[in-house]
Amino acid sequence: MPDRIDLNADVGESLGPWPMGADEALMPFLSSANIACGFHAGDPLTIRRTVRLALDAGVAVGAHPGFPDLLEFGRRAMSITSRELEAVVLYQVAALAGIARAEGGRLVHVKAHGALYHHVSSDAAAGLAFATAVARLDSGLAIVGPPGSAVLEAATELGLRSLVEGFADRSYEPSGRLRARDLPGALHEEPEMAAAQAVSIAREGRVTAVDGSVVPVAADTICIHGDTPGAPAIASAVRRALEAVGIEVRSACA
Amino acid sequence: MPDRIDLNADVGESLGPWPMGADEALMPFLSSANIACGFHAGDPLTIRRTVRLALDAGVAVGAHPGFPDLLEFGRRAMSITSRELEAVVLYQVAALAGIARAEGGRLVHVKAHGALYHHVSSDAAAGLAFATAVARLDSGLAIVGPPGSAVLEAATELGLRSLVEGFADRSYEPSGRLRARDLPGALHEEPEMAAAQAVSIAREGRVTAVDGSVVPVAADTICIHGDTPGAPAIASAVRRALEAVGIEVRSACA
Amino acid sequence: MPDRIDLNADVGESLGPWPMGADEALMPFLSSANIACGFHAGDPLTIRRTVRLALDAGVAVGAHPGFPDLLEFGRRAMSITSRELEAVVLYQVAALAGIARAEGGRLVHVKAHGALYHHVSSDAAAGLAFATAVARLDSGLAIVGPPGSAVLEAATELGLRSLVEGFADRSYEPSGRLRARDLPGALHEEPEMAAAQAVSIAREGRVTAVDGSVVPVAADTICIHGDTPGAPAIASAVRRALEAVGIEVRSACA
Amino acid sequence: MPDRIDLNADVGESLGPWPMGADEALMPFLSSANIACGFHAGDPLTIRRTVRLALDAGVAVGAHPGFPDLLEFGRRAMSITSRELEAVVLYQVAALAGIARAEGGRLVHVKAHGALYHHVSSDAAAGLAFATAVARLDSGLAIVGPPGSAVLEAATELGLRSLVEGFADRSYEPSGRLRARDLPGALHEEPEMAAAQAVSIAREGRVTAVDGSVVPVAADTICIHGDTPGAPAIASAVRRALEAVGIEVRSACA
Repeated sequence: MPDRIDLNADVGESLGPWPMGADEALMPFLSSANIACGFHAGDPLTIRRTVRLALDAGVAVGAHPGFPDLLEFGRRAMSITSRELEAVVLYQVAALAGIARAEGGRLVHVKAHGALYHHVSSDAAAGLAFATAVARLDSGLAIVGPPGSAVLEAATELGLRSLVEGFADRSYEPSGRLRARDLPGALHEEPEMAAAQAVSIAREGRVTAVDGSVVPVAADTICIHGDTPGAPAIASAVRRALEAVGIEVRSACA
Repeated sequence: MPDRIDLNADVGESLGPWPMGADEALMPFLSSANIACGFHAGDPLTIRRTVRLALDAGVAVGAHPGFPDLLEFGRRAMSITSRELEAVVLYQVAALAGIARAEGGRLVHVKAHGALYHHVSSDAAAGLAFATAVARLDSGLAIVGPPGSAVLEAATELGLRSLVEGFADRSYEPSGRLRARDLPGALHEEPEMAAAQAVSIAREGRVTAVDGSVVPVAADTICIHGDTPGAPAIASAVRRALEAVGIEVRSACA
Repeated sequence: MPDRIDLNADVGESLGPWPMGADEALMPFLSSANIACGFHAGDPLTIRRTVRLALDAGVAVGAHPGFPDLLEFGRRAMSITSRELEAVVLYQVAALAGIARAEGGRLVHVKAHGALYHHVSSDAAAGLAFATAVARLDSGLAIVGPPGSAVLEAATELGLRSLVEGFADRSYEPSGRLRARDLPGALHEEPEMAAAQAVSIAREGRVTAVDGSVVPVAADTICIHGDTPGAPAIASAVRRALEAVGIEVRSACA
Repeated sequence: MPDRIDLNADVGESLGPWPMGADEALMPFLSSANIACGFHAGDPLTIRRTVRLALDAGVAVGAHPGFPDLLEFGRRAMSITSRELEAVVLYQVAALAGIARAEGGRLVHVKAHGALYHHVSSDAAAGLAFATAVARLDSGLAIVGPPGSAVLEAATELGLRSLVEGFADRSYEPSGRLRARDLPGALHEEPEMAAAQAVSIAREGRVTAVDGSVVPVAADTICIHGDTPGAPAIASAVRRALEAVGIEVRSACA
């Protein structure tokens, strides 16, 4: 039985004068922070402040690159060649890595955001371009992605560490896939449900799907969505529940 | 008598579908390339291609950060706090450094662009913020700036290497300052004049000013402007003239 | 004794996924809305939604153009030629005017934002460029600005209507100027104080300055700052106080 | 037999310091100019200068809105809701319309650019959103699009004028569709071939396809691509050839 799990969330999603998320409240409950890199959210001041926040809380610093798309927050699907994808990811992750270094820390992992997350998960060429950019920058970095995704396969192929991601606050279909956001019951808004699911994933490698069936969900790291109003409460409940059953919350790369 | 000099130019100033400059023609004559970082010019694909071009030509890779200002090409003066300046420079230089590393090279020097160049040269707090960003990222980097500038003083203070910059294709006033661009005779458009001035700076540490007087101009590196139509011809003439008198053209950090 | 006054606020300052302000709560208390145009805040969807909100509330639609500067929200001073200023204002105001027309309304007034407001108020050439852009687009538009400002002088000269602006929630110096934001007592955070000052301006054309002296402040329109947490409460108190003494709150152009 | 035809080209595609196209050389041969609106190319100064150029040459002013995508020049497919599409088009066309008015002219037609052109041509909801934005702004505007396209059907439905577009410098397949750009023979680079095809379309409503067959191609307006090096020579040859056979080159809306 596993005795540890990683807990990650997307942070650093403010932009200039526009705040987003509750990074300070959320940070103490995390072991890994995915920090927006300036293309779909974030800006140099926000990135630096968020890196500082993570390092001060002992949270592993991750880069969270996205498509160049502020207005739709990187959630807009767009066509992109492998060459451009590689360059765009390289630029964003390099910026994050340098700022982490300037703050006395180091970049540990990379996770794609929004529409880029879906694209590199489902498209083999895109997954390879993403993993190639990361590997060329630093072969010691880990990549976070969904189980069986193109990007994790490419990461493994290139000798990078792959971290499979599960979700505490999203419900699963009997197929083992996440339930689509626009369907009823897609989100576990009650902290207790998210906490129970996190414990089930971390301890037993399985969840109860929306139809009551039990499906296997192995995960190296569990994601808490940071952009919901109750995110800190959910994160707190998840962390307490995990620790209550003797599971240590720790970066998968620590 | 010095037997070597550095020859630098600003490159990588294209943007997406809009080409600028003659980087391929210019590169063989340079020893140092200042590559735009995406805020006043450049984009991830352009940066990567330009880094590759420099490395293939054996030219030292430099970062050329600027103000966030595409429409006026970073030539627009703007107010910026030291905190923001530091973050904005850190972000840009970190991106360039990572891309250089991904291409199998390394970042060697940093030179501010346009209005940022003037700001960090003349304002002590801005010069310190700029040098601090560079030093925090990598204390092995050199900073390029005008003689006696705030940014070079700060660089020295922080233990960074300072590279004093002279100009081959701009004329000097008797005061030792560059002649303002909008005055007649500000530019040496004939390659021979630029070449003669470069030799005079490199060998004798002095130039003939616009009034015929001779003024001291010591320089570790000589700048060729890359954005004029005749830039490659000027660079070629300068390099040939220097080598003809036995001065090696080499990165100051090589 | 005047029996009416205009009450304006800056709105439409959200950007894509980032909300700002409390436009829906604020709108019922206003007679004029200054809507951000996409350069320092706002985007096409936000602009359209805000225009709709204003028209539905019977509030006069105004354009609130700013410098191209999302990260510092248009509050960053920057150099700009008169030619560029004119074009940048023309573009933003034209976009707003067209969206107002598409929603079945019309653009009524224009007020510069942030650093552009200060620039066109204090610099004669900039004030003229701003007023020229507005006049060339539509000579029926009014311009809002501080008393004695360059932009209002230019507006008058060009045959545009000038609207002098006073402030309900900012304190005044004995000189009649606004107290600088970073000094103590610069803001009237209590709704009652803002309300009393608005009534004093509207009815008597004067305010009590920070030192207790009484200074003349004539105004066609009174500004409520929309970006403070208590903005709707202040706006509500101001409007009620004005109406309680028989002053109608109405667009100066209605 | 028709005795007139419209000749259009995409212009105003420079951005800040980056020139593109040969607008001044091209303009005298056109009857309609499609001017980029700042989202995929163009900026306030460029737009204004290009509107002035068109008006001075007696060329009809059109808006050429595109996706928000400078780096790929609006040629990148992206997902967009009808609501956002409508707002984004409204904003761009309104800006262009206002600048045309400020220069003493008026906006005459609207043509989508790049990936937006393809999207509104092939997707019914997108075509309707595009035409709705145009119609709400000004029901006197014409929309330019390919024959049988969704956007032209929507335009007709909404009571807007539809202008069917043919191409002088692109070859046609036997199906009547344009030959894909990446296939051999897709472009007529020789001015004479483009000129002959333009005459054939204008006079006979048909072209000789790549396989030698003759296919019907009716067109109200013929497009010349402005972004090729030989664009002015092609435009000149096309115009001379049309006039030589007695066909007047004139805006379809004049």
